[in-house]
Formats: sequence, structure tokens, C-alpha cells
Amino acid sequence: MKKTIIGVMGPGANATETDLENAYELGQLIAQEGWVLLTGGRNAGVMDAASKGAKFANGLTIGVLPTNDTSAVSDAVDIAIVTDMGNARNNINVLSSDVVIACGMGAGTASEIALALKNHKKVILLTNHPESKAFFQSLSEDSILIANTPAAAIEMVRGVLTDRH
Amino acid sequence: MKKTIIGVMGPGANATETDLENAYELGQLIAQEGWVLLTGGRNAGVMDAASKGAKFANGLTIGVLPTNDTSAVSDAVDIAIVTDMGNARNNINVLSSDVVIACGMGAGTASEIALALKNHKKVILLTNHPESKAFFQSLSEDSILIANTPAAAIEMVRGVLTDRH
Amino acid sequence: MKKTIIGVMGPGANATETDLENAYELGQLIAQEGWVLLTGGRNAGVMDAASKGAKFANGLTIGVLPTNDTSAVSDAVDIAIVTDMGNARNNINVLSSDVVIACGMGAGTASEIALALKNHKKVILLTNHPESKAFFQSLSEDSILIANTPAAAIEMVRGVLTDRH
Amino acid sequence: MKKTIIGVMGPGANATETDLENAYELGQLIAQEGWVLLTGGRNAGVMDAASKGAKFANGLTIGVLPTNDTSAVSDAVDIAIVTDMGNARNNINVLSSDVVIACGMGAGTASEIALALKNHKKVILLTNHPESKAFFQSLSEDSILIANTPAAAIEMVRGVLTDRH
Repeated sequence: MKKTIIGVMGPGANATETDLENAYELGQLIAQEGWVLLTGGRNAGVMDAASKGAKFANGLTIGVLPTNDTSAVSDAVDIAIVTDMGNARNNINVLSSDVVIACGMGAGTASEIALALKNHKKVILLTNHPESKAFFQSLSEDSILIANTPAAAIEMVRGVLTDRH
Repeated sequence: MKKTIIGVMGPGANATETDLENAYELGQLIAQEGWVLLTGGRNAGVMDAASKGAKFANGLTIGVLPTNDTSAVSDAVDIAIVTDMGNARNNINVLSSDVVIACGMGAGTASEIALALKNHKKVILLTNHPESKAFFQSLSEDSILIANTPAAAIEMVRGVLTDRH
Repeated sequence: MKKTIIGVMGPGANATETDLENAYELGQLIAQEGWVLLTGGRNAGVMDAASKGAKFANGLTIGVLPTNDTSAVSDAVDIAIVTDMGNARNNINVLSSDVVIACGMGAGTASEIALALKNHKKVILLTNHPESKAFFQSLSEDSILIANTPAAAIEMVRGVLTDRH
Repeated sequence: MKKTIIGVMGPGANATETDLENAYELGQLIAQEGWVLLTGGRNAGVMDAASKGAKFANGLTIGVLPTNDTSAVSDAVDIAIVTDMGNARNNINVLSSDVVIACGMGAGTASEIALALKNHKKVILLTNHPESKAFFQSLSEDSILIANTPAAAIEMVRGVLTDRH
């Protein structure tokens, strides 16, 4: 039976120290809940840190890769989905996730949040980027939740999953 | 030889009256410059209005459709590219455009702006949505231009095309 | 109003002399009928030859490119659709074509024929590869037509377009 | 660390009784080897039977779905990757598989074999469709292996995986 998948989206090379710490903790907490972690799969930034956190807690990790270059995959990814479709794979990331957590901000992450909203998914923002909160809440007040810590984000995921049933 | 393609992106069903008027005028001006217009191709909102404006000025119009349902294509589209890949086609829209103009705002449009920035394309915002301007400028100050009228947007496109040569 | 688009699919680097001559003639004949030519867009093999034939006859040419590398586009392509999705773009090629002509054979071309059949499109084979005819006719006798010359292929396209109306 | 993924591709609604029996046995054997099974994910034909076989042997199953309709997913799929990109997802199926096994034949399966060859993957054909063997061997003698039983196919997968290291 289909497992619950939580997507963690965030910057690669431009992730901040705080983004990386949050991503690692998110991965760990997601694994502890028994959920599967889905990321963009590369060995960089939030994708890599979240996957490492999940593996530390013995979770299962999916990486949806933009290119056909499997040397770019994070060591902490168990299941590599090779799309070779560049940033168009961002739509697959959000469609495959029961809930999306955006950890940090950048153009790629913004596209994933926007695609998630377009596809009627709930998105939890874990960022202290004030323009992001204002913008995405203006697009869809109901579907954007704001978290200040990884633990709060996980609590919100639990709420979204419960509401669906 | 490859023609210059200008993408006009904007809401479908949720376009405002102002968005539709701006889109029609943008289409007309793009055609008058001898450029090809590219939109999301559906018979709704900004896509439809821009295509109609371009046809009124005898331009060539491309529509990159999200579904395999050709009954949903705008009457004013000459060349229908049928992707059947939903919102992942938004990445094709921006990659195929020399410059992107965002006319109005919504989750789909936001994803196109973000994907354009991720792919190092210039984006001209024609919107009076204040949170959009603040957010996208915070993502990439250099690549976001703000226009107040269709004519100003076209002037900016000319500038971007000149700078590239 | 949506123009009629005829797709010509065939090998790139591995095209034979006969494939290239046939492709050039197909492009020319398609343009003379007033149809738009769609190919895979690269400056190689059947894609390039067909596009050149169409331009010689003042036709309009679309190239649906697999990568984001616009230096690889054929000089004879007017409208470059940049997908950056590798061979997955083969599905867009066939969905966007009213009728598909396969000129020559190879793994990529075979995938396009198979995807066309899966999407209920008619495919005209212009090849002297005996295993291809036997195989694709075994998959779908009704949807595969065999032509021996470019002129015969164009005659078959006319028949398919007439039957649809 | 990235797990080994074996793709089993085959018809949905048009699968024969033999295809379904072979697919179930393939799924079981793949799971017993400790490999992950990847299929097209729908609750029909070879995809469904292979996934059920793998779950019977406590394996892990990935389904790469063509649509956004999660009611169409097989009950035996653990990880649903939702692409919403129709048959273009066939390219993801083969790129994500270390080895591809084609179980039965049809237009969709043929597209997956051709895309696998285009992407330099080894393909094992488990079918008694004579035109398929002749055709795909004519495309690439080195990359096509012919198996007569599920056990023989698994033996060939082992050989391919060993050769790579």
C-alpha cells in the first residue's frame, strides 16, 4: 500500500547553515514518523542534508534527479528516480509528495512552492525570508502554513494528514 | 533561422479585466515588432487574450498546451505544441522564450517566473500586485524588470534583446 | 486557427544517404502543401535535412529540442521549442503532429513510432528496413502505412487528413 | 546508498495470461534478490502483477504513474511517483532502472524498449512475439537479451549487474 511521502524542497549550492541544520532535523523527524522522504536528490544543500538526517534515523529516501548524471546523486538517497528533464522535474517532486515542506528559499524552491499550490497541495514554509511569507500567503492563504522550527513543521504535517482522512 | 520568441504568461480563469486588456495589447505589440508570441495555449485568460491581440496584428502564435485535449486550445493559436505533461510544461514555456513577460499573477504564473529565473532568463513583471514585485526582486534583483504598461514592457524586451547581441 | 503539422522523425548521426535525400524531399513537399513541418530540431541527420527541404520551399519549421543547448539547433528551424527533457520530448513530437512520417530507423525513431501508436496517431513508414515493417504492423495493422517514396508518403498524409474531416 | 532497481515493463489492459504469470514470478524473484522493483504503477496488467509478486516476497515496489489520478495506482505499489506527464514518463521508467525487463508486448512497452536502447540500457525480452525479437535485435544486437522464462531473465540481470562492476 502506498506509503506517506513528505517532500523537503530547498536550495542546493546556496543553502544557508540554518537551512542545512533545519533540513537535517526535518529528515530525521520524517523518518522517525515512519514517513518516506522525497527530495530533489542531488548531493548538495537541503536535498543532501535532509536525506542524511533521514538515513541517520533509518528512514527511506527518494531522490528525483534533474539530470541523467548519477554521479550527482546524494549518498544518502536510497531510490534514485532519474528524470533527465531539468527543472520540469520540480512538478514531479510536488505531485509525489503528500505534503511539501520548503526549507530555505531560492528560484528553484519558489517554483516548487508555486507548482504545489497550483496542484492544490499544502505547503509548509520554514524560512525567515519575509517576502516569501507575504507573497505565497497572498497567492493562497489556505494552503500556506508558516513554521518556525522543524518540530513545528512536522506537527503541521501531522495535522494536514489527519484532516485528509 | 530561429525567430525571436516572446513568452506572455498569466492567469487563465482568474485573470482580471486589466490583465486581459494588457495581454491583448502585449500580443498586438509583439506581433508588430515581428516577434513570435508564445503562451500556454488554452482558450482562457491571458493566454487567449494575448494570442488574439497578436493575430489582430497578423503575428504568429505558439501555444504550449498542458493536456492532450485539443478542444481546449485558443482559436488564436497557430502552432499547438501538445505536451500532455500538465504544469511541468511551464518549464518549456520559459526555456523556449527569449524573454518572459508575466501579465497578472497566480500560482501557475509564479511558477513560470521562478522557473525563468532558475534558467537565467529575464522576466518583465506587468502587475500591480505589490507582494510579487518585492518577492521576485528579492530572489534576483538583476533579472526582474518592472513595467507599468504594455508599451513599457515591450521597450524593456527591446533592451534585453539588444544587450544580448 | 491551428495549422496542420506534419512530423518527420528519423535518425540523427546515423541517417543514411537515402534517409537524408528522402527527408529533404519530404520537407519540400510538406511545405508545398502548406503544412507546417515539425522535427526533433537538431542540426543533424533527418531533422536537419527535412527542415532544409521545407525552408527551400518557403515552409514554416518547428524544432522540438531535447536539450537546453541552442547551439545544437538546425539553421533551418524557425521555431525552436526548448524542452530540456531528453528523449521524453519524443512524446511531444508525436502528440503535436497531425500525422507522423518515420524516415529511416533507429532506437529514437522506433520510440517515436511506438509512442505515436500508443497515442492513436497514424504513422507512415518510409524505410527499407524489413524488420521494422513486420514489427510495427504486428503492433497495429490499422495505424501503420508503408510508403516507398516521399511522394507516396505525402499522398498518404493527404488521405489521413481527409478521413479525419 | 542507491539501491539496485529493476524495471519490469509490459502491457496494461492487453496483457495475456502468460504475461501476468511471468510478471508475478519476475516480481517475486526480483524481491528475493534484494532488488527494488519499478513499474508503470497502474492497477492493471503486468505492472500490477509484478508489484503483487514482489510484495508477496516482501520486496519494495516503485510505481511511476502517468497521470495525477492516484486512484489508478496498484495496491501493491509502496512508492508512487506521480508524473502527470502521460507516456513521456516511459523515459523516466527506463532511466531509473539498472536493467529493464520487457514482459509481453504492446505499443507502450515497445516505446520503453526503444527508449532504453536509446539511453544505452540493457533490455531483456521475455515474450514469444517473434517480430519483436527480430526488430529489437536489428536495432541493437548487443543490448537485447532474449529470455524464455522469468528465472532465465533474472539470471541475465545478475550477469548484466556483474559486468558493470
